[in-house]
Amino acid sequence: MAAVDVDSGRRKLDWARAHMPIHARLRQRFGETQPFADTVVAVCSHVEAKTGVFIETLAAAGAEVVFTGSEPMSSQDDVMAALAEQSGITGHMRHGVSDDELARLHETVLDHSPNFILDDAAELTARWVARHPNAAAGLVGTCEQTTTGVQRLQAMVGQGVLHFPAYAVNDTPMKHYFDNVHGTGESTLTNLCQATNLLLAGQRVVIAGFGYCGRGLAEKARGWNARVIVTEVDPRRALEAHMAGFDVMPMSEAARWGDFFITATGNRDVLRDGHFRQMKDGAVLANAGHFNIEINADDLAGMAETRREVRDGVEEFTLNDGRRLNLLAEGRLANLAAPTAMGHPAEVMDQTFGTQLMAAVDLMERRNDLNAGVHPVPDAVDREVAEIKLATLEVGIDELTETQQRFAEAWRTEDIKA
Amino acid sequence: MAAVDVDSGRRKLDWARAHMPIHARLRQRFGETQPFADTVVAVCSHVEAKTGVFIETLAAAGAEVVFTGSEPMSSQDDVMAALAEQSGITGHMRHGVSDDELARLHETVLDHSPNFILDDAAELTARWVARHPNAAAGLVGTCEQTTTGVQRLQAMVGQGVLHFPAYAVNDTPMKHYFDNVHGTGESTLTNLCQATNLLLAGQRVVIAGFGYCGRGLAEKARGWNARVIVTEVDPRRALEAHMAGFDVMPMSEAARWGDFFITATGNRDVLRDGHFRQMKDGAVLANAGHFNIEINADDLAGMAETRREVRDGVEEFTLNDGRRLNLLAEGRLANLAAPTAMGHPAEVMDQTFGTQLMAAVDLMERRNDLNAGVHPVPDAVDREVAEIKLATLEVGIDELTETQQRFAEAWRTEDIKA
Amino acid sequence: MAAVDVDSGRRKLDWARAHMPIHARLRQRFGETQPFADTVVAVCSHVEAKTGVFIETLAAAGAEVVFTGSEPMSSQDDVMAALAEQSGITGHMRHGVSDDELARLHETVLDHSPNFILDDAAELTARWVARHPNAAAGLVGTCEQTTTGVQRLQAMVGQGVLHFPAYAVNDTPMKHYFDNVHGTGESTLTNLCQATNLLLAGQRVVIAGFGYCGRGLAEKARGWNARVIVTEVDPRRALEAHMAGFDVMPMSEAARWGDFFITATGNRDVLRDGHFRQMKDGAVLANAGHFNIEINADDLAGMAETRREVRDGVEEFTLNDGRRLNLLAEGRLANLAAPTAMGHPAEVMDQTFGTQLMAAVDLMERRNDLNAGVHPVPDAVDREVAEIKLATLEVGIDELTETQQRFAEAWRTEDIKA
Amino acid sequence: MAAVDVDSGRRKLDWARAHMPIHARLRQRFGETQPFADTVVAVCSHVEAKTGVFIETLAAAGAEVVFTGSEPMSSQDDVMAALAEQSGITGHMRHGVSDDELARLHETVLDHSPNFILDDAAELTARWVARHPNAAAGLVGTCEQTTTGVQRLQAMVGQGVLHFPAYAVNDTPMKHYFDNVHGTGESTLTNLCQATNLLLAGQRVVIAGFGYCGRGLAEKARGWNARVIVTEVDPRRALEAHMAGFDVMPMSEAARWGDFFITATGNRDVLRDGHFRQMKDGAVLANAGHFNIEINADDLAGMAETRREVRDGVEEFTLNDGRRLNLLAEGRLANLAAPTAMGHPAEVMDQTFGTQLMAAVDLMERRNDLNAGVHPVPDAVDREVAEIKLATLEVGIDELTETQQRFAEAWRTEDIKA
Repeated sequence: MAAVDVDSGRRKLDWARAHMPIHARLRQRFGETQPFADTVVAVCSHVEAKTGVFIETLAAAGAEVVFTGSEPMSSQDDVMAALAEQSGITGHMRHGVSDDELARLHETVLDHSPNFILDDAAELTARWVARHPNAAAGLVGTCEQTTTGVQRLQAMVGQGVLHFPAYAVNDTPMKHYFDNVHGTGESTLTNLCQATNLLLAGQRVVIAGFGYCGRGLAEKARGWNARVIVTEVDPRRALEAHMAGFDVMPMSEAARWGDFFITATGNRDVLRDGHFRQMKDGAVLANAGHFNIEINADDLAGMAETRREVRDGVEEFTLNDGRRLNLLAEGRLANLAAPTAMGHPAEVMDQTFGTQLMAAVDLMERRNDLNAGVHPVPDAVDREVAEIKLATLEVGIDELTETQQRFAEAWRTEDIKA
Repeated sequence: MAAVDVDSGRRKLDWARAHMPIHARLRQRFGETQPFADTVVAVCSHVEAKTGVFIETLAAAGAEVVFTGSEPMSSQDDVMAALAEQSGITGHMRHGVSDDELARLHETVLDHSPNFILDDAAELTARWVARHPNAAAGLVGTCEQTTTGVQRLQAMVGQGVLHFPAYAVNDTPMKHYFDNVHGTGESTLTNLCQATNLLLAGQRVVIAGFGYCGRGLAEKARGWNARVIVTEVDPRRALEAHMAGFDVMPMSEAARWGDFFITATGNRDVLRDGHFRQMKDGAVLANAGHFNIEINADDLAGMAETRREVRDGVEEFTLNDGRRLNLLAEGRLANLAAPTAMGHPAEVMDQTFGTQLMAAVDLMERRNDLNAGVHPVPDAVDREVAEIKLATLEVGIDELTETQQRFAEAWRTEDIKA
Repeated sequence: MAAVDVDSGRRKLDWARAHMPIHARLRQRFGETQPFADTVVAVCSHVEAKTGVFIETLAAAGAEVVFTGSEPMSSQDDVMAALAEQSGITGHMRHGVSDDELARLHETVLDHSPNFILDDAAELTARWVARHPNAAAGLVGTCEQTTTGVQRLQAMVGQGVLHFPAYAVNDTPMKHYFDNVHGTGESTLTNLCQATNLLLAGQRVVIAGFGYCGRGLAEKARGWNARVIVTEVDPRRALEAHMAGFDVMPMSEAARWGDFFITATGNRDVLRDGHFRQMKDGAVLANAGHFNIEINADDLAGMAETRREVRDGVEEFTLNDGRRLNLLAEGRLANLAAPTAMGHPAEVMDQTFGTQLMAAVDLMERRNDLNAGVHPVPDAVDREVAEIKLATLEVGIDELTETQQRFAEAWRTEDIKA
Repeated sequence: MAAVDVDSGRRKLDWARAHMPIHARLRQRFGETQPFADTVVAVCSHVEAKTGVFIETLAAAGAEVVFTGSEPMSSQDDVMAALAEQSGITGHMRHGVSDDELARLHETVLDHSPNFILDDAAELTARWVARHPNAAAGLVGTCEQTTTGVQRLQAMVGQGVLHFPAYAVNDTPMKHYFDNVHGTGESTLTNLCQATNLLLAGQRVVIAGFGYCGRGLAEKARGWNARVIVTEVDPRRALEAHMAGFDVMPMSEAARWGDFFITATGNRDVLRDGHFRQMKDGAVLANAGHFNIEINADDLAGMAETRREVRDGVEEFTLNDGRRLNLLAEGRLANLAAPTAMGHPAEVMDQTFGTQLMAAVDLMERRNDLNAGVHPVPDAVDREVAEIKLATLEVGIDELTETQQRFAEAWRTEDIKA
C-alpha cells in the first residue's frame, strides 16, 4: 500500500476552507459559544476535504468528534490523515474497505457512545437503533442529510423504535435545492464526462427519478444539449417532467433509447435484467443515489460473457449477443466513487454542512422541548443559514415595509383593496 | 354598448372544450354520480372560456351554479352570454364593471345562500365570513386556487372566524407547478410582447418575487434570451434565484436597470414612488399578481405631468424630467386584463379547474370528517388528477415492484444492503 | 369599410420611433448629408409602424419615397394614412387587397421609375427585371432583406438578367442573427400563443427548416419548455440540430408527433397531403416563411369535409375521419398576418432597416465601382451599424492593443510563441 | 521516469475506436482505395487516443505517417507507445517536453520530407514554409483544423510565401459547430469543474471571445446556471452575445466581477497585468485557446509574492495585497493539459478528424486543379461527412421533391406564387 500523503490532505483542506465561507463564520461564532462542549459527536459521511472542514468546525465548537465513512470508496486517506493531526478528532475509516470492514468500523464508532449523530443515509442511526430499540440510550438526537436517510428514519418511527428527536436536514430548501439540484447535478455529470470522455450534446440521457437530484441532472444534461428522457413512479413528478419539456416513459421503453442512464431514485433494481436486455451497444450506466443498489450489478454480471475494466472506473460487460454495457464506479455514487471524483463542489457542501451544523446546535439547545420523532428543521434556522450565505455573496434583498407586513396578514376586502 | 356576440362565446367554449380533456372525463364521471345534486355552488373567477367549461362541468355534476367575476376587466361578455343559455347556470357579472359594482355583484351571489364556494383570491369567502363571523351558516366548504386566497384564509383562521373546511388547492403540486410556473409564465410574457411589440432578447427583465409564478416568469424570460434580475424578501428564495443563475438585488437597485418590470409577489406597493424615480426612460411595468396593487399606480399618477394611452392597453406616464414609464393594463393582471389577453392556456386551466373539481367533490364526501380550517388537498386526489392527465397525454410511467415497495419501507442495515 | 383611424397610425409611429434609436441617429446624420437627394426610392415591405419609421427616415435623407406592401394582409391602413400626411412619401397599398390587386399596385410603383429599390423577397426587383431583362434601365441598385429574396436574385444572376448591383442585406450578421433568430422567433411564437390560447410547455413543436429563422424558433420554443422536432434537407444543418439537442427526423415521421407545426424553409409544399393524413386531431399549423406556400392549403381544403373559423385567424379543417387541423392566418406569415399580429419587435426592425439604410447609402456612393450582381454588404457598413447599436445600448467592448494587432497578422513560430 | 503502460494505451485506443463510427467507415473505404499510397503524411496534433485512431486510419489508407505533438503537455505516452506497435506509423513526441525540445521534434518530422501535412495551429506548415519560402518543395498540401492555424495560413498568403494549396478545415460547419461549440465547451468546463471542485451554478463566468468556442462555453456555462459575462473586440459578435442574453463589457470592467475567467480568442495577453489587479480573491483563470499566451503568466508571476501548486494542475499566485489568483494548467489548453484532462470527446474528434481525412483525400485527388492558397473545403466533402455521421446515428432527413427543387431555382413572380 502506498504511503499516505498527509501534505496532499492538508492542501485539500486549505482549498476547501477557502471556499467554505459559511463555515468560516460559524467556526468563529461557535468557537466562542462552544455549543458541543462535553459532547461526543459521531459523524458519518464521505470523508473528503469538505467533510474535513465540517469536522474541524465541529471540533472548534467544542465537540469530541468521532468520524467514519458512509461508503467504502468515497473517503480519502490523505484528508483523513490531515484530520488525524488535529485535536479533538478521531477517525475510523480507510479508503477501499470491504462492506464487512465498514460495518465493523461503524460499530466501533458507536462504541464511543456518542451523544449526537450527524448522519448520512441514517447509517449510524440505524445501527444505534438496532442496538437500542427501546431507549435513546444517551443519544440527544441526530441530523440527517439525505433523502434515503429521512426515509429510513420515517420507517423507524413507523415501527416505534426511534426514541430521540431527528432533524430532517435533507428536507430544508437550503439543502435540497442546492445540494441535490446543483451539487449532484454538476458533479455527477462532470464525472460522467471525465470518466468516459464522451459528449453530452445530442445524446439520449435517461434519468431515473425526478426528485431534486433527478431534476438537477435532467436540467443540466439538457443545458449541455443532451436529449433527456425521465422515468418516474409518481404521476405528479412525471407530469412535471413532461411539462418541463422532457420525454417521459417507463424504463422498459426508455431502456432501448438511452446512450447514458443515471439512476437517482433512492430505490433498488431501477436498472435490472429486463432493461439490460434492450439497451444499445455502448450504453453507459451510472448511479447518483446513495447506495450501490439502484443498478443491479448482479443481474448484469450474470448476463455477461466477459467483463473488463475498459477505462479507469469504467467496467465493460459484454453480453452474449456482442453488446457492450459500461458500468461506472461499480454502480456506486458516480460523483464520489469514480477514480478522479471529487464529490460535491465546495460551496454546496458549505451550505449543506452549514445547515447540519446550525440544525445540530438548535437541536442541542431545544433538547428538552423536542419529542422523539422526525422533525423539520425550524424555519428560523434554515433562514439564518441563507442569510449568512447571501452575506458572503454580498447579495442584498428586500424587506417588507410595515404596510406590506400588515397586508400579508389581512383578509377583509376593505383591507386588501387599496 | 355593443351587442354581445353569443356565437363568439359559443365558439370560444367549443375551442376550450376541445383542449380540456380532463374536464371531458370528469363530466362523464360526475354526470353519472351527480356529486353536487341539490347543491348551490358559487364560483368566483375570471369568466372566460376555460372557466366556462369548468362551470358547465359543475352543472353537469348536478350543481346549481351561480358565478361571478373575480376582477372587473377579466371576464368576457360573449362567453357569459353563451353560458347563460345553459341550464343550471346563473351569472352575475359584466365586463368592465366598477369596483363598487363588482362588490354588489359578489354580494348578490352570496344572496343565493351557496352551499359551496369555488373561489379566487378568497373574494367570496371573505365576504361570507364577514357576513357570518360566528358560524358556517350552511356553507359546506370552499376550495381556493390562488396563493393570495390561501394567505387570506390563513389570516381568517388566525382570527378565529373560519367555521368550515377549506382546501388549499393552490398548494397542490398539480396546481402551482403548472398554473403558476407555466400558465402565468407563458401567458404574461405573451401578452407583454403582444401589447408592446418589443423584444425580450437582450432586455433586462426584473421579476419581483420568486415564488412559483416568479420562477416561471424568470425561467421563460431567460428562455427567450432576456437578462433577468430577481427581487425577493425571503433569503432562501433569493439564494435559490441566485443559484439558478439570475441576478438578485433589492428593488431599489434593480429599478434603474430594468427595461421590463413584472410583479408577482401577492403583496402591495412592490413598485412605488422611490422606484419610479430611478427607472429608465421607456421602462414597461406589468403585474402578474391577483390584485392591481403591486404597482402603486397612484404614486405614478401623482408624479406624472401627462398621461396618455400610447398603445391599446398601455398607458404612458411622462414625468417632469421627461422620462416616460409605460403601465400595462392599469396594473391589473397582464395576462387577463390587457385588450387582447386570453388568460391562461386551456390545458393549464383544465388541470387547475380539474383539481378544484376533484377537491370539491372530495370535500363534499368528507364533509362530516373534516374540521373547520385550511386543509391540504388529500394526496390521493391530487394524484388522481395527475393520472387522468397522463392518460390523456398517453404518457406511461413506472410502478414500484414488490421488492421496491418493501425496500421503500425498510430501515435496517441488512434490509437495505443487497 | 371602416374609416381609417389616422390618429392610431400616428401613435403607432410615435411608439416605434421611441424604440428605434438607430434610426434616430441616422435620421440626424442623413438629414444633413442628404444621400438620396433627387432619387426615387421604391420600398416594398410590410407597411406597419416600424416600416413607417424607416420610410420617414428615407424621406428625411432626401429620397422621394414610393412604397407598397409585400403581402396582402400585413400592411396597416392607419399607419399608411399617417405616412401619407408626411411630405416626400407616396403609398400604393391597402390592407386586405387580393393577389391581383397587389400585383397591380406593385406595377404602379414601378411606373414611378425608381432609381433604387429597397425590397422584400425581391418582389419589386423581379418585376423590374421582367420589364427590363436586358438593362438596368436607370436603376442604381437594390438592397434585399430576406433569404427568399436573395435566393431569387441569385437565380436572376444565373439566368443573366440582373444588370445592376444588389446588396444581400439578409446575409449580414447584423440582419440574420437578430431579425431571423430573435425577431421571427419571438414574434411568431407570441402570435401562435395569442391566437390559440394554448401552452407551449410539454407540447411537441415541429420546426421545418433549421436556418436562422428555424433556429430561433426551435431555441425559443424549447426555452418555453416545448419538446422540439426539427426537419431539414441539408445534412449539416440536420446534424447541427441534432447536436443542439433537438430530435431530427423526416417530416413524414414528424407529422404524426406534432402538436404544433411551424414552417420556416423558404420553399413550398413543406406540409402537404401525405403529412396531413398522419397528423393528430387538433394539430395547429403555422408558417413563418415569406410566402403562403409552405403549407399547401389547397391540399388541406381538398381533404376537408368542413371548414370554419374557429377562432379569430384560426381556420379549422375537419377531415372525413373526424380529425381537426387548425391553420393559422391562412398559412401566411403568422407574425404579421394574424388578426392581432404586430410583426417583428421594434428594436429588431431598427437594426434590420438600419442596415438596409446604411447599405443603400453605401451602394449609392459606390455605384460606379460595383459590378452588376449580388454583393455582400461591405464589412465596414455592417460593423458600423453594430457600433451604433452598441452605443445606444451603452454597451462597451474591447479594442485590440497594438501587440495584439501585430499578433493577429503573424505566422512565424518565433512571432507566435511569447 | 515511470515505465510507459502500453496496455493502457491499447485500451484507450479500443475505447476511442468504439466511439468513432465515422472512422470505422472511412477505414473500410480507404483501406480499399488506398488514397495515400506512397505518401508521407505528417500529423501534428494532441496525440491522445482519438488522434491515435485518426493516425491508424491514415496508415490503413496507405500513408506512411510521421506524427508529433502540437503542445508540450497534451500528448499521452501510453497512447503513443501503443501506436508505435503498429506498422506504417512513426512518432516523434514525448509528454512534458520543453518548448525547445518540441521545436526540435517538429524539425525532425519535417526531415522525413512529408508530401502532406495534417496540421494543428499551422505548427508544421509554418516551419516548412520557413524552410522553403520560395517553393512547395514536394509538399502537395496541408489541411488545418484550428482557427489559429487558418489565421496563420492567411498571413503566409499575405506575405506571398504559401506555395501549395491548404484547406481551411476549421471553417467547415462540420468542424466549428461541433468541435468548437460542443467539444471545447463541454471538455473545458468538465476539466474546470474537475480541477477545482467548484460549482458553476450562480458563479460569474467571464468568457473572453465570442467565436464558436466562446459561444459554446458561454451557452454551456449558462446551461449549468452560471451568470456569464462576454468580452469581445468585434461589435457584431458583441451584439450577438448581448442579444443572446449575456452581459457584455470590456475586460477592464469584467475583471472585477468574475469568479472564473476562460479565454477563447486566439490572441495574446487577453488577461494581463491591469486585469489581474482588479480581480477578486480566489478567481480562477483558464485558457481554451490553442497557445498558452492568452493569459499572460509572466505578468502574473511578476506580481506574485508567492506561488504554489494548491491542487493538481492549479497554481495559486498570492499577490502582495493577499488576493489569491488560481491559474489552471499553466495557462495551457485547460481541456488537454490539466492532469486528468482527456481532450475533446470522442464523437467530436471522430467528426473533426473525419473531415480532415475526407478533405485530405479530396485535396490529393484535385492536386493538379488547385492553386496555391487557402481554400474552403468543397461543399460536397463537408456534406458527405455529415451524411455519414447521420447514418451512424440512424437519423433521417428530408429530400427536396422535384417541385421544390424547381422552386428553389425560380425567381419570376408567376413561378413563385402558387
